[in-house]
Amino acid sequence: MSLKSGFCDLGFAKVDLDRQARRGFAEVIYCPGKAREHISSIACQLIKNKQDLLLTRLDKQTFAYLKKKIPGLRYNPLAKAGFLARRLVVLKRGLVLVISAGTADLPVAEEAAVTLEVMGNRVKKLYDVGVAGVHRVMHHAALLKSAKVIIVVAGMEGALASLVAGLVKVPVIAVPTSCGYGASFEGLAALLTMLNSCSPGIATVNIDNGFGAGYFANLVNK
Amino acid sequence: MSLKSGFCDLGFAKVDLDRQARRGFAEVIYCPGKAREHISSIACQLIKNKQDLLLTRLDKQTFAYLKKKIPGLRYNPLAKAGFLARRLVVLKRGLVLVISAGTADLPVAEEAAVTLEVMGNRVKKLYDVGVAGVHRVMHHAALLKSAKVIIVVAGMEGALASLVAGLVKVPVIAVPTSCGYGASFEGLAALLTMLNSCSPGIATVNIDNGFGAGYFANLVNK
Amino acid sequence: MSLKSGFCDLGFAKVDLDRQARRGFAEVIYCPGKAREHISSIACQLIKNKQDLLLTRLDKQTFAYLKKKIPGLRYNPLAKAGFLARRLVVLKRGLVLVISAGTADLPVAEEAAVTLEVMGNRVKKLYDVGVAGVHRVMHHAALLKSAKVIIVVAGMEGALASLVAGLVKVPVIAVPTSCGYGASFEGLAALLTMLNSCSPGIATVNIDNGFGAGYFANLVNK
Amino acid sequence: MSLKSGFCDLGFAKVDLDRQARRGFAEVIYCPGKAREHISSIACQLIKNKQDLLLTRLDKQTFAYLKKKIPGLRYNPLAKAGFLARRLVVLKRGLVLVISAGTADLPVAEEAAVTLEVMGNRVKKLYDVGVAGVHRVMHHAALLKSAKVIIVVAGMEGALASLVAGLVKVPVIAVPTSCGYGASFEGLAALLTMLNSCSPGIATVNIDNGFGAGYFANLVNK
Amino acid sequence: MSLKSGFCDLGFAKVDLDRQARRGFAEVIYCPGKAREHISSIACQLIKNKQDLLLTRLDKQTFAYLKKKIPGLRYNPLAKAGFLARRLVVLKRGLVLVISAGTADLPVAEEAAVTLEVMGNRVKKLYDVGVAGVHRVMHHAALLKSAKVIIVVAGMEGALASLVAGLVKVPVIAVPTSCGYGASFEGLAALLTMLNSCSPGIATVNIDNGFGAGYFANLVNK
Amino acid sequence: MSLKSGFCDLGFAKVDLDRQARRGFAEVIYCPGKAREHISSIACQLIKNKQDLLLTRLDKQTFAYLKKKIPGLRYNPLAKAGFLARRLVVLKRGLVLVISAGTADLPVAEEAAVTLEVMGNRVKKLYDVGVAGVHRVMHHAALLKSAKVIIVVAGMEGALASLVAGLVKVPVIAVPTSCGYGASFEGLAALLTMLNSCSPGIATVNIDNGFGAGYFANLVNK
Amino acid sequence: MSLKSGFCDLGFAKVDLDRQARRGFAEVIYCPGKAREHISSIACQLIKNKQDLLLTRLDKQTFAYLKKKIPGLRYNPLAKAGFLARRLVVLKRGLVLVISAGTADLPVAEEAAVTLEVMGNRVKKLYDVGVAGVHRVMHHAALLKSAKVIIVVAGMEGALASLVAGLVKVPVIAVPTSCGYGASFEGLAALLTMLNSCSPGIATVNIDNGFGAGYFANLVNK
Amino acid sequence: MSLKSGFCDLGFAKVDLDRQARRGFAEVIYCPGKAREHISSIACQLIKNKQDLLLTRLDKQTFAYLKKKIPGLRYNPLAKAGFLARRLVVLKRGLVLVISAGTADLPVAEEAAVTLEVMGNRVKKLYDVGVAGVHRVMHHAALLKSAKVIIVVAGMEGALASLVAGLVKVPVIAVPTSCGYGASFEGLAALLTMLNSCSPGIATVNIDNGFGAGYFANLVNK
Repeated sequence: MSLKSGFCDLGFAKVDLDRQARRGFAEVIYCPGKAREHISSIACQLIKNKQDLLLTRLDKQTFAYLKKKIPGLRYNPLAKAGFLARRLVVLKRGLVLVISAGTADLPVAEEAAVTLEVMGNRVKKLYDVGVAGVHRVMHHAALLKSAKVIIVVAGMEGALASLVAGLVKVPVIAVPTSCGYGASFEGLAALLTMLNSCSPGIATVNIDNGFGAGYFANLVNK
Repeated sequence: MSLKSGFCDLGFAKVDLDRQARRGFAEVIYCPGKAREHISSIACQLIKNKQDLLLTRLDKQTFAYLKKKIPGLRYNPLAKAGFLARRLVVLKRGLVLVISAGTADLPVAEEAAVTLEVMGNRVKKLYDVGVAGVHRVMHHAALLKSAKVIIVVAGMEGALASLVAGLVKVPVIAVPTSCGYGASFEGLAALLTMLNSCSPGIATVNIDNGFGAGYFANLVNK
Repeated sequence: MSLKSGFCDLGFAKVDLDRQARRGFAEVIYCPGKAREHISSIACQLIKNKQDLLLTRLDKQTFAYLKKKIPGLRYNPLAKAGFLARRLVVLKRGLVLVISAGTADLPVAEEAAVTLEVMGNRVKKLYDVGVAGVHRVMHHAALLKSAKVIIVVAGMEGALASLVAGLVKVPVIAVPTSCGYGASFEGLAALLTMLNSCSPGIATVNIDNGFGAGYFANLVNK
Repeated sequence: MSLKSGFCDLGFAKVDLDRQARRGFAEVIYCPGKAREHISSIACQLIKNKQDLLLTRLDKQTFAYLKKKIPGLRYNPLAKAGFLARRLVVLKRGLVLVISAGTADLPVAEEAAVTLEVMGNRVKKLYDVGVAGVHRVMHHAALLKSAKVIIVVAGMEGALASLVAGLVKVPVIAVPTSCGYGASFEGLAALLTMLNSCSPGIATVNIDNGFGAGYFANLVNK
Repeated sequence: MSLKSGFCDLGFAKVDLDRQARRGFAEVIYCPGKAREHISSIACQLIKNKQDLLLTRLDKQTFAYLKKKIPGLRYNPLAKAGFLARRLVVLKRGLVLVISAGTADLPVAEEAAVTLEVMGNRVKKLYDVGVAGVHRVMHHAALLKSAKVIIVVAGMEGALASLVAGLVKVPVIAVPTSCGYGASFEGLAALLTMLNSCSPGIATVNIDNGFGAGYFANLVNK
Repeated sequence: MSLKSGFCDLGFAKVDLDRQARRGFAEVIYCPGKAREHISSIACQLIKNKQDLLLTRLDKQTFAYLKKKIPGLRYNPLAKAGFLARRLVVLKRGLVLVISAGTADLPVAEEAAVTLEVMGNRVKKLYDVGVAGVHRVMHHAALLKSAKVIIVVAGMEGALASLVAGLVKVPVIAVPTSCGYGASFEGLAALLTMLNSCSPGIATVNIDNGFGAGYFANLVNK
Repeated sequence: MSLKSGFCDLGFAKVDLDRQARRGFAEVIYCPGKAREHISSIACQLIKNKQDLLLTRLDKQTFAYLKKKIPGLRYNPLAKAGFLARRLVVLKRGLVLVISAGTADLPVAEEAAVTLEVMGNRVKKLYDVGVAGVHRVMHHAALLKSAKVIIVVAGMEGALASLVAGLVKVPVIAVPTSCGYGASFEGLAALLTMLNSCSPGIATVNIDNGFGAGYFANLVNK
Repeated sequence: MSLKSGFCDLGFAKVDLDRQARRGFAEVIYCPGKAREHISSIACQLIKNKQDLLLTRLDKQTFAYLKKKIPGLRYNPLAKAGFLARRLVVLKRGLVLVISAGTADLPVAEEAAVTLEVMGNRVKKLYDVGVAGVHRVMHHAALLKSAKVIIVVAGMEGALASLVAGLVKVPVIAVPTSCGYGASFEGLAALLTMLNSCSPGIATVNIDNGFGAGYFANLVNK
């Protein structure tokens, strides 16, 4: 293993040790397709170099394996996220509101929330307020207005993002989910909805990308 | 020209003279791709056989040509529809409400409306009430509730159909339009939105198919 | 758990208790992606608040679990639908005819039928009458004419909807199914067929959405 | 210009002079994207070498230009096909029936018909018999049964091919057309319909490929 | 069970007993998505009514179940086809040549071959002669020329169909297969190749539809 | 014309007069598909009600028409944007940096810039710094670091967004453009690139949606 | 205008003056979407800095405009390429063979050829040798074997690339063209064919990207 | 088994024994979808005829089976490649550099590397240098410049290929991988990125086609 300027070369990986300084948060480990020994090595390098630690799409079995090597590692099973608690003190920032249209969107919404919390943001959650019963979100108008950034997580037709953006003065980050069937085409329908919203003030991340939405919201909320 | 059981054979076309009896309304002439002499021949056969007359996607020039051959032919230039006024007496039926999300959706909404009126329905129009300013449609709650059938015409992300369906007890017929750009893919985004709506009670017709929505609503309203 | 105006907040879900009054039928529970404890909680809230109960895409195991908590819960295994029998008295309404093109379309057709029956409609079924042997549907011309609404369920190329709509005076609700292979692209071929039908009088729901077709037909049949 | 074994090298083109012997009909000139001088040179080579001559997608202006160079050149303006009449004597073969669903499909149907006629086949045409009025095609059952090969040309949802194939014992060649709008996606809907037909006995050619259907039917009819 | 004119109504299915007379071969049973009891019932009705019997996409387990109920039922495991041997005497007809590009295309090629044989055709097979080594197919020029119909089965880029069609005077039926990965998109690449062939004389069936190709070739070969 | 709570009903349009209060900026007029008289009426209503005025995708001819009715109306011909200069005083805010990959992306980049300026933001532009010559963007590292929000506008493969996001601590708003040809599919390639970026901290708007990016950046920059 | 390290900043463009040293050839100007004054400015900067000059997709009118400002500028109208002749001395390198399947592919093939020639390569052309008449390419086996790199340009189904690659020992660069109609989907069919080739030894560039193929072949040929 | 000129006919396969002479390397066995007995037979024929041996996408179980029949067979488990070591002496050639963007791309990168090594090339590997931390690839500028050919393997948005090509004078072969989720559409996003690169000098192979990239690079490196 050789240490070069700004990264550490493990052969199979070049861990970006400059990331936290350059971008404000350490390299985040996306777990699918990586051997657990590799995940462990990368995580240990990050810890050794005093970087934050966040692991996404981490399954329960791999968490159990890592837990033994990394004392203090915590896990949000719904979000499938592993993290070290260092930053869990909430910084002086605005409120980030994470909204979901349905209950099947919760894993993605939780991934956004846990990402935000690990990065030191204050988060509130408003779940299951899809447009099929619009009085549910309307009831929370005050909450909507208290947020500095809003994340809207929705599958199926994803109409909630347009509705929410039409009501507020703050940026809305839209996350399409793959919930649905048939012509939802694994989240494509919701993605297109969000990209074509008639309400300006929306930007969109990849399907099921709760992490990306949380990361982006954190940058906005700084 | 030979007359066979239930249709009239013009060689280039077999005019379905049984249509009115069988389906409740005569064969409707979809004009694109037809020579104007052909349109005229078909229309004359229908008139001669005491059928209704409705021509869709009829451009102004062809209307002017037909007007000379068919006295009394009327034209809605926004809807691009030609028709004979025979049925314009409103029958005893429920109210059909035609809603559009934006002003660019008007041609499609008008095509639905004129189709309904030619078929003898009572029609009201509620235009430009998209979800970017949701108070506009909410303001008309009473009107929504007075309808027996509702047609929602929307382009871009097409979210209005879900919202409206979530508020009413009657069938909502959704018409995606090709208004939009980029990832609207000529109406595909709105079409997928409407097919995947989280509000049940919606059925969808082809992109820009105002005629199809009006025809279907007329059958429901009988 | 807090009870707010028109909905009940379970945290993970906001059960829409106003749905039955507003829309004529209670919130229907779409089961995939929900924990069985969550399904159970939502169902119990609905029952407690004297709402109808219908659960779609409910697998056998979850039904067995729910059965213990909800006495009287019934199950249609082909349609994968759970329901309480309250409304199974048929209301004074027209006949809804559910037609399927092939035998592989039965689960979707049954989902439409059970939805209609739970909502108090009179239903007849005409299965396996696809266009490969058109005499089968022609033989039932009288039955077609006796219906007030018709649902056509078809996979592969989905041509049956056009044929049926061409024969009747009533609305035809088309349901594409994912039956087929290769260039059927999981139901896309049938969906496009139905959206582009040359027979007016058709509106389409999502692929495999028997529930949506039944719900819509119920609204038409009122 | 050099003459090599089996082809003639014009530099910009290598005219396949072996085609007629090898395949039963000469190289056919697809005109779009070719300079008219080039078309003329290729055609003259074919004539000089006693090959058949057929030009497809030939516009009126180019025909007028070629007409001066190639005496006896004939033109079908609807099919946009140019040809030399040599073979127009009908050979001893079966009947090929060309069916179109609508009148907007005529150019494609005519391209199939003229291709067949130039190759010496006996052709009958049955136009505008789409499934929206199924009695029109049913009326011609005897004609359907008299054919040795059938070509079905249809746009929009293209359901006619399945219906016809379900009634006969002979091969049905399906030609999707780009007629339609919205979710017809320039003929894709009809193409998928035909590829997924529940009636076996259908094979499909490219969208708007009347020539290809005629060519194939000629091979079957030999 | 009721017997109506031309079909037998089993409730879940309407077996088309007129098929053999009308189309020259009995209704063929496509097995996926059907309960084995249902397959058995349909098969028994066909046998009772002296129809041919062919079952496609029949898995080994279901074959074992059916074998007990239908003595004499035979099975081609590569083609996954079940059939009764009645017709296996070869009729006086031309030769059908089934060509495959690769060895992974064999199941589809075999399905075509067994379909042809059950229908009484003389079949030869030429497997693994893809364009990566074009001398293999060129070596068999005489065999190509001896056929009355040719079926070309190919996955990946599917170029073999164009090559073969360019060499012969007979109809080429192209069957794209889902063999491949990445941008083959489950057979879409090969399908598009075949539809767009620069060699006329090709018609195409659905992806992996060996049965459809065999059925069509049988009609051509009559 | 009737004035209702929060909007003004012009019949063809319901101008949202509550927009500025609710969302921080008035309803913006998207011009395509609207009659110029209609655009004029809507604009006059907004002015009369002391709302901001911004018109997007406004062509030169329509601008000339409006200019006569709306004194002081200004025009950015590259961005195709019309606006009233009221707000052009720069507010106390962070710097927004608008980056383009190529010169063909300028119209979209300018639309973002003019939107930001009309809303009172300080804007800098860094054009033509695509990854084909990465030293160009690297040269401006200090400028990148001075921004509070960055908009990256790129067509073709759209790789610049990932590169820039990897260098900074602030939110990057990615705008795919339709520049390119072939497999760029009118901006789809760039859109997918941006949605799938391996650098977190990016959110994406619709293809060519410079306005949407500017609007969103303005909300972030508040 | 400011000159910075490695590029020249014209405001609307940053001309990469390091390109020739870094990559072996100067920045090439892709003309569509650029104002002619801008093209002229960029070209002049390149000349002033002793860089090569190549302009692609340059229309005749813009060439005429530039010709006046840039003495010695030459033009290939079929390839739509402008260039300065400096390098037209052929360097000591291998032969590059440019093959086209049809005559409609010539503009793309010529763009590849002119790119290669401007970069100092020896080029031979073999046009119109598509697989519909495979003897044409087979006849030139010796020519195929004499090349160090081969470019294959083909539209429609694009099968020629697989065939050629199967015959040689050198890299084959495949260029799909947008020639074709219907299910060629503007070159998508040919692109997929080339990406999925069963003959290894092929790499593919964008649809109609003759320039890209020539540029790449030049790098291989060095 | 019959031996014909240039190939050996095993019935289910025609092993191309002329491949090594004609193309410089023997037929490579793509294992998926082939029975292990068949793979074994083909491999033995190749060995018997003194051809090279390379098996791709070979799973561990099949390798274990083959190992018993083919002494000396070696296996790279990450690349899933089996091979005989004959050629593993490195020939006098340039360096091929295999770069991967992320660690999840390693299997594809290794498949490219092993293919190159079996063919006698000198290979270096530079893994995990994606654009999210661009200093990692910049750090290796000297290595980039020492290569004669470069392979870039990348999933997600695949931007690395454009960046690398912009820095070097040698051909870059881009391999999109299916790593990613949501709108990566199984590698489509990376594929489109690579095809549309603004940096010339890139050619692309199929998604996950490490073998194809290695094979092509070998031809370039000769």
